[in-house]
Amino acid sequence: MEKKKNTEIAQLGEFGLIDTLTKGFKTQVKTTLQGVGDDAAVIAAGRSEALVVTTDLLLEGIDFDLTYFPLKHLGYKAVTVGISDILAMNAQPEQILLSLGVSSKFSVEALQDLYEGVAAACKEHGIDLTGGDTNASVTGLALGITAVGRAKRNDLVYRRGAKLNDLICITGNLGAAYMGLQLLEREKKVLSGVQNPEPQFAGYEYLLEKYLKPRPRTDVIAALAEEKIRPTAMIDLSDGLASDLMQLCKASNCGARIYLERIPIAQQTHRLAEELHTDPVVAALNGGQDHELLFTVPLDMQEAVMRLGLVDIIGHVTAPGTGCYLVTPDGSDIRLRAQGFREE
Amino acid sequence: MEKKKNTEIAQLGEFGLIDTLTKGFKTQVKTTLQGVGDDAAVIAAGRSEALVVTTDLLLEGIDFDLTYFPLKHLGYKAVTVGISDILAMNAQPEQILLSLGVSSKFSVEALQDLYEGVAAACKEHGIDLTGGDTNASVTGLALGITAVGRAKRNDLVYRRGAKLNDLICITGNLGAAYMGLQLLEREKKVLSGVQNPEPQFAGYEYLLEKYLKPRPRTDVIAALAEEKIRPTAMIDLSDGLASDLMQLCKASNCGARIYLERIPIAQQTHRLAEELHTDPVVAALNGGQDHELLFTVPLDMQEAVMRLGLVDIIGHVTAPGTGCYLVTPDGSDIRLRAQGFREE
Repeated sequence: MEKKKNTEIAQLGEFGLIDTLTKGFKTQVKTTLQGVGDDAAVIAAGRSEALVVTTDLLLEGIDFDLTYFPLKHLGYKAVTVGISDILAMNAQPEQILLSLGVSSKFSVEALQDLYEGVAAACKEHGIDLTGGDTNASVTGLALGITAVGRAKRNDLVYRRGAKLNDLICITGNLGAAYMGLQLLEREKKVLSGVQNPEPQFAGYEYLLEKYLKPRPRTDVIAALAEEKIRPTAMIDLSDGLASDLMQLCKASNCGARIYLERIPIAQQTHRLAEELHTDPVVAALNGGQDHELLFTVPLDMQEAVMRLGLVDIIGHVTAPGTGCYLVTPDGSDIRLRAQGFREE
Repeated sequence: MEKKKNTEIAQLGEFGLIDTLTKGFKTQVKTTLQGVGDDAAVIAAGRSEALVVTTDLLLEGIDFDLTYFPLKHLGYKAVTVGISDILAMNAQPEQILLSLGVSSKFSVEALQDLYEGVAAACKEHGIDLTGGDTNASVTGLALGITAVGRAKRNDLVYRRGAKLNDLICITGNLGAAYMGLQLLEREKKVLSGVQNPEPQFAGYEYLLEKYLKPRPRTDVIAALAEEKIRPTAMIDLSDGLASDLMQLCKASNCGARIYLERIPIAQQTHRLAEELHTDPVVAALNGGQDHELLFTVPLDMQEAVMRLGLVDIIGHVTAPGTGCYLVTPDGSDIRLRAQGFREE
């Protein structure tokens, strides 16, 4: 298509690509409080409030495989994906808009299942579906999700606020969604061509739920507000701990040290990783899709944060230019690197 | 995938499908001023203002063919698609967010062309790009566009406000974008397999521009504000006059009579239609993608509207239940019907 120089996307990686594409853009509208470069855009709304807006695409064959992904769960997960970015700004999600690209292989009833999942998530999290566009698609299913939230401007938390010696906190546990996906992929492979397949999921229900129906951490945001803990920086854990921590550190112009033995990993994640001969730490660092929250708080908040019972402290912020390191139990430092551009 | 009843999407049509999928959703958040069912969602922002938010998907193979659609133009058009929905609420577009799904066949330079078009449109219309997500895609290019605008709540114009005897107005002319597409498709077919193809576009530059690089009608919205003309109802002309007029009438619970000889059609549209042995009126009624505005004003606004020099009055609003009719020069009434669900 192009005669000039051809640089492959993979050479830049996802974040390098976004930087390259958007570097020429300067904000010019006075209501734009935050442009490209955080979990969501921030737009002035009245004197003291702001709306936060985020958009995501979920594409069949990349982000989900309908062989094993029930459409109802997919609808639920689409809402979680949108809400998580809003929560990561310390804002309250309020509205969601959904654009569908859909080929003729889908029946109306199949799409109703999808919307049932959307409705369940909206009800559970007290938000409204306020847009419902549908388009044709050549092959599969494409979901465009826009989520809108609201916060007092002073309550907003950006990626860029982490300070030297701040504590690095994460909610829940990591790698479970990724291991859930590995399990589904294994059973799909094993049972391919089998009539009336009966996949073996016993004992791994938690992993499946974390992958197929992740819950946004509205509880954590509410608990932080109740305890008057305002993180200095925050990001949604959607690309994996390594990648997301590096994004936060880049925005905050700082380094980080996290401790391997402090990374919370669920029992089922450990067990399945053993069964599949893989490393659960790799799943936690690079797996992604956990939709937990990664945030930093000042050192003197340690007790208050621990009292929440929802958070693990996994490390601390270091000086600019020191890089992001994983410290193993034997004391060696492993430099973190971001995952490449995800593409199959 | 589904064992239960299978209703084909085509049986419902696009609008029937959206109605079916979203009918169970009730708004529950007090900041939601308008949910599903208009060009954009309306969300409270401060005491007297509102933000309007809209989302669209543009999918390769359905909405554009990269054989002849330059990526720079596609970036520009993506912004127009978003802005047009904001303008149709009589609001001022301020921000746009873009999600990309992209396969490895695209180079970084190709995507930079796309973003150059986005940048040009942002600059021209004074809006900010505030989100820039990229994902992988299995096959082609997918664009998720979210546009955000702002208005005083009292200035907002919905689809639902048309009143009996209101005048039906449209901006620009119709069918040109559709004929531009027909021309591009013809040349693609004719020149398929030809080395160094030289497509014949002379004399049809306007049609190509209307399809490849449509301009949102910010000028019309500004002129209406200046002349203190507040339409009673408004909709973006993206699906074709017939379909969009029926949407407006459904929302306003009214009928309509429009007059064939008053529908503005450009000379180039007439000429190419003749050359291709098609009816330019069909292009105007069903072609879509004109991104002009359709709106209604009270009868006593006739002179004021005509003075703008930007608008044609093509008919008037009739009583509920009377249906939407096209009146031909020989006086016969043709009942309008919406196009089906667009799918190739």
